[in-house]
Amino acid sequence: MTQPTHLTYSGIPTFARAPLVDPQGDWQADVAALGVPFDIALGFRPGARFAPRALREASLRSVPPFTGLDGVTRLAGVTFADAGDVMLPSLEPELAHHRTTEAARAVRQRCKVPVFLGGDHSVSFPLLRAFDDVPDLHIVQLDAHLDFTDVRNDTRWSNSSPFRRACEAMPNLKHITTVGLRGLRFDPEAVAAARARGHTLIEQREVEADFLGVLEQLPQGQNVYFSIDVDGFDPAIIPGTSSPEPDGLTYAQGMAVLAAAARSNRVVGLDLVELAPGLDPTGRSELLMARLVMETLCEVFAAPQEEQA
Amino acid sequence: MTQPTHLTYSGIPTFARAPLVDPQGDWQADVAALGVPFDIALGFRPGARFAPRALREASLRSVPPFTGLDGVTRLAGVTFADAGDVMLPSLEPELAHHRTTEAARAVRQRCKVPVFLGGDHSVSFPLLRAFDDVPDLHIVQLDAHLDFTDVRNDTRWSNSSPFRRACEAMPNLKHITTVGLRGLRFDPEAVAAARARGHTLIEQREVEADFLGVLEQLPQGQNVYFSIDVDGFDPAIIPGTSSPEPDGLTYAQGMAVLAAAARSNRVVGLDLVELAPGLDPTGRSELLMARLVMETLCEVFAAPQEEQA
Amino acid sequence: MTQPTHLTYSGIPTFARAPLVDPQGDWQADVAALGVPFDIALGFRPGARFAPRALREASLRSVPPFTGLDGVTRLAGVTFADAGDVMLPSLEPELAHHRTTEAARAVRQRCKVPVFLGGDHSVSFPLLRAFDDVPDLHIVQLDAHLDFTDVRNDTRWSNSSPFRRACEAMPNLKHITTVGLRGLRFDPEAVAAARARGHTLIEQREVEADFLGVLEQLPQGQNVYFSIDVDGFDPAIIPGTSSPEPDGLTYAQGMAVLAAAARSNRVVGLDLVELAPGLDPTGRSELLMARLVMETLCEVFAAPQEEQA
Amino acid sequence: MTQPTHLTYSGIPTFARAPLVDPQGDWQADVAALGVPFDIALGFRPGARFAPRALREASLRSVPPFTGLDGVTRLAGVTFADAGDVMLPSLEPELAHHRTTEAARAVRQRCKVPVFLGGDHSVSFPLLRAFDDVPDLHIVQLDAHLDFTDVRNDTRWSNSSPFRRACEAMPNLKHITTVGLRGLRFDPEAVAAARARGHTLIEQREVEADFLGVLEQLPQGQNVYFSIDVDGFDPAIIPGTSSPEPDGLTYAQGMAVLAAAARSNRVVGLDLVELAPGLDPTGRSELLMARLVMETLCEVFAAPQEEQA
Amino acid sequence: MTQPTHLTYSGIPTFARAPLVDPQGDWQADVAALGVPFDIALGFRPGARFAPRALREASLRSVPPFTGLDGVTRLAGVTFADAGDVMLPSLEPELAHHRTTEAARAVRQRCKVPVFLGGDHSVSFPLLRAFDDVPDLHIVQLDAHLDFTDVRNDTRWSNSSPFRRACEAMPNLKHITTVGLRGLRFDPEAVAAARARGHTLIEQREVEADFLGVLEQLPQGQNVYFSIDVDGFDPAIIPGTSSPEPDGLTYAQGMAVLAAAARSNRVVGLDLVELAPGLDPTGRSELLMARLVMETLCEVFAAPQEEQA
Amino acid sequence: MTQPTHLTYSGIPTFARAPLVDPQGDWQADVAALGVPFDIALGFRPGARFAPRALREASLRSVPPFTGLDGVTRLAGVTFADAGDVMLPSLEPELAHHRTTEAARAVRQRCKVPVFLGGDHSVSFPLLRAFDDVPDLHIVQLDAHLDFTDVRNDTRWSNSSPFRRACEAMPNLKHITTVGLRGLRFDPEAVAAARARGHTLIEQREVEADFLGVLEQLPQGQNVYFSIDVDGFDPAIIPGTSSPEPDGLTYAQGMAVLAAAARSNRVVGLDLVELAPGLDPTGRSELLMARLVMETLCEVFAAPQEEQA
Repeated sequence: MTQPTHLTYSGIPTFARAPLVDPQGDWQADVAALGVPFDIALGFRPGARFAPRALREASLRSVPPFTGLDGVTRLAGVTFADAGDVMLPSLEPELAHHRTTEAARAVRQRCKVPVFLGGDHSVSFPLLRAFDDVPDLHIVQLDAHLDFTDVRNDTRWSNSSPFRRACEAMPNLKHITTVGLRGLRFDPEAVAAARARGHTLIEQREVEADFLGVLEQLPQGQNVYFSIDVDGFDPAIIPGTSSPEPDGLTYAQGMAVLAAAARSNRVVGLDLVELAPGLDPTGRSELLMARLVMETLCEVFAAPQEEQA
Repeated sequence: MTQPTHLTYSGIPTFARAPLVDPQGDWQADVAALGVPFDIALGFRPGARFAPRALREASLRSVPPFTGLDGVTRLAGVTFADAGDVMLPSLEPELAHHRTTEAARAVRQRCKVPVFLGGDHSVSFPLLRAFDDVPDLHIVQLDAHLDFTDVRNDTRWSNSSPFRRACEAMPNLKHITTVGLRGLRFDPEAVAAARARGHTLIEQREVEADFLGVLEQLPQGQNVYFSIDVDGFDPAIIPGTSSPEPDGLTYAQGMAVLAAAARSNRVVGLDLVELAPGLDPTGRSELLMARLVMETLCEVFAAPQEEQA
Repeated sequence: MTQPTHLTYSGIPTFARAPLVDPQGDWQADVAALGVPFDIALGFRPGARFAPRALREASLRSVPPFTGLDGVTRLAGVTFADAGDVMLPSLEPELAHHRTTEAARAVRQRCKVPVFLGGDHSVSFPLLRAFDDVPDLHIVQLDAHLDFTDVRNDTRWSNSSPFRRACEAMPNLKHITTVGLRGLRFDPEAVAAARARGHTLIEQREVEADFLGVLEQLPQGQNVYFSIDVDGFDPAIIPGTSSPEPDGLTYAQGMAVLAAAARSNRVVGLDLVELAPGLDPTGRSELLMARLVMETLCEVFAAPQEEQA
Repeated sequence: MTQPTHLTYSGIPTFARAPLVDPQGDWQADVAALGVPFDIALGFRPGARFAPRALREASLRSVPPFTGLDGVTRLAGVTFADAGDVMLPSLEPELAHHRTTEAARAVRQRCKVPVFLGGDHSVSFPLLRAFDDVPDLHIVQLDAHLDFTDVRNDTRWSNSSPFRRACEAMPNLKHITTVGLRGLRFDPEAVAAARARGHTLIEQREVEADFLGVLEQLPQGQNVYFSIDVDGFDPAIIPGTSSPEPDGLTYAQGMAVLAAAARSNRVVGLDLVELAPGLDPTGRSELLMARLVMETLCEVFAAPQEEQA
Repeated sequence: MTQPTHLTYSGIPTFARAPLVDPQGDWQADVAALGVPFDIALGFRPGARFAPRALREASLRSVPPFTGLDGVTRLAGVTFADAGDVMLPSLEPELAHHRTTEAARAVRQRCKVPVFLGGDHSVSFPLLRAFDDVPDLHIVQLDAHLDFTDVRNDTRWSNSSPFRRACEAMPNLKHITTVGLRGLRFDPEAVAAARARGHTLIEQREVEADFLGVLEQLPQGQNVYFSIDVDGFDPAIIPGTSSPEPDGLTYAQGMAVLAAAARSNRVVGLDLVELAPGLDPTGRSELLMARLVMETLCEVFAAPQEEQA
Repeated sequence: MTQPTHLTYSGIPTFARAPLVDPQGDWQADVAALGVPFDIALGFRPGARFAPRALREASLRSVPPFTGLDGVTRLAGVTFADAGDVMLPSLEPELAHHRTTEAARAVRQRCKVPVFLGGDHSVSFPLLRAFDDVPDLHIVQLDAHLDFTDVRNDTRWSNSSPFRRACEAMPNLKHITTVGLRGLRFDPEAVAAARARGHTLIEQREVEADFLGVLEQLPQGQNVYFSIDVDGFDPAIIPGTSSPEPDGLTYAQGMAVLAAAARSNRVVGLDLVELAPGLDPTGRSELLMARLVMETLCEVFAAPQEEQA
């Protein structure tokens, strides 16, 4: 008989069955997960607070290493840790941001690639602050929306503003490439501000029309942070999100963008946000997005290892 | 043929098909509804932001006047208005409180009995502030929980604290009677503080054991505000709530408490909070709670009318 | 090894695994089921069209005979048939009524106790017409509502009117006893008309206050048809219905009324209506109501058999 | 601070937050919505009666005007009104048709482009009758099915027959172009009748194979009514419909057909039918279809304005 | 500011936030949880495999110690551990039983009161085998069904047979008291076998009619194992179970039986089985049952501590 | 008036309204359905036990014959029977396999093309055993996974192993062509074993890149059995399955593979497995897969009839 293992639905759901660690503890790993169950900054359908737990449970179907049909094994020898969730307050946004940045900083110090499990997109701001020492930081963002608005619904801290805040606070944040933009309405001031900074705004229609051209617009040889808003994907594929927009990325398209960017840059971290598990009773949203994270890590660690920061 | 009317599922859902008015507009009504779609102050399952809309839709099954099996007609001639929802910001709690109090004050000036549709229980604080000129205000609260905690999860503004904040801010808030208390855990400091103020704490086990004794503990001849937390009811009856506690009030018990209090006091307003429609796919939670509000109004307006404030 | 049998979820779902027969075919049985998947006469939430199928599936958990904890076996030797569903047109109410009456008449001629699976409550009218030759027909109705309205929403054929129409059309329909009445609103004209005919109107509050007194008001020694509207039951128990009313019958209360009436009368048929399976994702509504039908049959056939019509 | 506005889930849900008007009242608008919550003419899964309300709620995410990523603003200055829902009877189809036609006629007289929110597809017949004075009326229909059947399930008024009835009743109804046809089964008599009238029947496989060819088959320079059956779309994209057919239109394809037809014709009105919100718990069906209506209006009002009827 | 803690939905869900331990590891605790995610032995609706995880998540709302409204603190100083789930094979029942017994034995050796989270009721057999050295073991079972059948559907290992198998295998298993029995059908051979062994069979109707009499039939001064089948409770209260039976235990009744038995005996362990979280989308089933376990532990540890085995 | 027929939701749901027969009875048909409601061999989310019933209900929307838009009628004169479900034991896998093979053998003897409605994919092994006398049997499998693993989770009988077991047991099983393979992880031993036998492994990326090339790899002129695992399809199209994998077959692609294989081979039977209706509350999974089966039969019987085995 083989060594017993857990069935998918069995066992305490840490990310990819990694050991549970304290963010501030004494540990090292190649990859470490940190959850940020915060969703009070979105303006429509809540539920992203449940995403860290749902993604961990879903990750149990995608525990590395992986041997493909081609016989190649990926993520072998790559070590994982799960640093649990940030201990957030109720309501108090500033305190929530502070604790998120502190935890992210601690995790970042102990691993090569932190994986942040949101939460709504507002969490990307306090997460990015933990990378304020990375030279010339680039962001590759999959998203239907720009999230570069100054003020929305009377607040500067909503899920429409994380990158605006980050650019204000972090002189090292050099550039943002956003892929998957679409929708009837954009904030003209935000578009102008992003363009003034030289950001690369790629509409989904460009992805459809000229995918190779899109890949060519991605950064090369940079320190890159991935911010994956699941509403970048088509809602037929990922229905579990607050604000679906039609005609989005396929899984393959999104994965190809991440793979290309991972192969040609140094990935310093990633977040996956705006997943609302309760909005998709089929459960596929978290299953597919947990796999996307894992497949992205395959690409990150398939890149020449010495170049990891 | 009779005059056409709407089927239950037809028509724009204002509360009880009342005319839609601006809170600050030029109107008068006996009853006016105001929604407060705010649920970012609770610590578990969100969704109460959708309650004002769900309660309005459900109210279309309970449009007065009502003639009972006994032939008595209730709420005939009582006029209704719907003042819509408070325009809330994202996130910013202080601003949300401010706007809620302003809207509630405006509505209160234009009607005899405002009906506030929450929202999580934290909204009761800004709502009550609109009653800071009522002499010797009494509250009758249906609730599994005391909601008198000073600080919870690092905030003073959560749905565990509305009555603590109200008592601090409103010298005229004289007394609170809470019916339906139960659960494994209470905040000892909150219990002590409530008892020190002389509040009446009635456990659900007393409701079961000595209902007449419970009724005798209700205020008499006072200015009373009803705060109805739907988790006061048994979760078998009202499953659509964030934090269900077993062994709660039946509909009949809850209604009897409200009826008794309505008949022997002057009701200055009421709120219904913590209803999370999405947590009850059967839809009965909002249907029953919309009816509870209407039946409570029957009792309020069955009391001698001249005594209405 | 024992003779293989089907697991509950296995096999073609006829009622209680009875043989499938044609209503007009050559067969005899003690009990025969006939479905009436018609729900376009209700004014709120549809779905009762799916009840015949749901009740058949649920009946597979309650296939007789039954031996109780007391060792007594019930429904042994009682034969069952399933006559399928009435073939209904789209829309055309008159044609739907005609086919329903024809099918019910055919089934009635071939069995002792037909079991009709609705459908909304409007189907009781065409079903009852198949009993227009029964001397002095009495109805025992479990229901929150009276369903004796002349015209509602511009039609005479809605689920609010079946008994009004039946009383008009059937001189032999002598009396109706309705148990479980409650709600804020009654149609005064309907109440007056029912009382003028001497019907027995029993409120749910009487069931709570004086159950023995309720049982004494039931008919004795009569030809009785049971019309079971599932909204007679408390919505905590049976949430799967279009128009829930709080504070309804428990299963035990409803069953006790049916048992008492079955024991002291000749039951000529029964219908179960207003079950909307899709409104109760827990599935208990159809499971409990299928059992109620079966337990009612236990009582019917426990009565002296020679007295069956 | 900016002027407060409602969050998406806040406020009374009129279409695009337009003022609520009486269909027969004294008002004018460029666009007016009218709901037709009628779904008793379909033969499978009900629920389209809830679509007008769901579409209004969903429209709150797509309130014009819209500024795109290209900086172009659309629907600026275009005025909206919401005429509520037609007051429908229960059951009585003829009366329902009469009231629908009357309300549609009234709305049409007061606006440039009426937007009708169904309801099952049978409502298109009484809606189209309100356009019986439009010279040479053309219909562009997105649909998996032809809906040109003479009699189905013993009725002439089901959702399979609206266009047959309209062609019989309206000599001015010149031509129908149906896009998205697919499925195993067609009514040969209906196909022959449509072809005998010269209608343009475009299968979904043509959309896939030769989209430009499809666009060339659309009418040019005509008075066009859009009838959008949501089952024209792929069920992966719009699962909330009674009768899903695989391999349907993408959102982009459907929108491109509507845009092309809007740009080269005079659009006199549109309906959106067969949306069953309860069948899609993810909520994306109504969100995407509300946006489709709005994006279609962008195209209609982007066409030279003087040509509007 | 206070020490940060997790919000209910935050953090890795171990039982009551206890440290995660290996069943065979080096640890000691007063209470230890062990999950048995096994549900292939039931004959109707699956899903109990997801119960250990759901109960752990739900337990985060009920983390001890608890101070009641009476100021009394319970479970203070009682230590908890979470031993995770048994690593089960697919399909192979004998191997699954073996691993379950081994894990249960290991856990039992390291704690005073093991808490087993099923799984369907078949798991009670391999769990009980871990107590084969307890002198004169008594079981107190809450259940609608007897679960003492020899063979059902061609197997001896289904969820209808655990106590039959345990009585055969464990000479020390002295007596079983079953509370909550009801339903149309019992296996006469099983009833006879249970009665022949002198078991105490208490119907739910006795609980309703003479609750004190029921309490008097409970064991006194014995080594007692609690087996809590959630279908013992009324399905209105706990809908999340495979085989609901109407007219069951209230939470208060079930808890009172457990409390009385805990106070007057030595509790050696407990299991909670047949919870199917997916069948109750309101989530209250797991929330209430996690609380029941915790409240039972309050009673167990309120009993004189020196008497714990 | 036409002969009455059932509306889609009406009538006892046999497959395509075929007569219900006993597998061992005296009947002949071109096509016969047999359900295998067995799902205890999968390692993640159960529910396939409910698929036979769901597929039968869904088949009522696709009852042949079919006349297409092209006027061609398909499946006219082809006779159908429904042999019900295999009577399965609880738990006992070997006995379940035995009964499945026996029933499949009986059905196969009485019809040209048996249609097996699973169940999880493990049922393909006992089903295939009924074809152990077919010379040079080929399988065309639509699947994301290879299902050729020797042992998984300590068992040889899981849904990962059916084809491994079949190849071991059936010397006549010549070849397997699997279409739709994808995913991060493959069992290297299984891949090697399949390749050693010369099986054709076609990845979904080949389907996307070179569909004609894929069709050319299909068998020609062989005796072919179709095994359709619904997770071969994209989860956006068929969400109702235990283990969704992104980027799968479209309905059109899957159907084109089956059509091509049906046209150029002799189809001896087919199974459809891994459909979990409860995981897709939109209901489209069973509706589309029932249609797929029917459309496949159209292709099978469109092939020259004399060549049917």
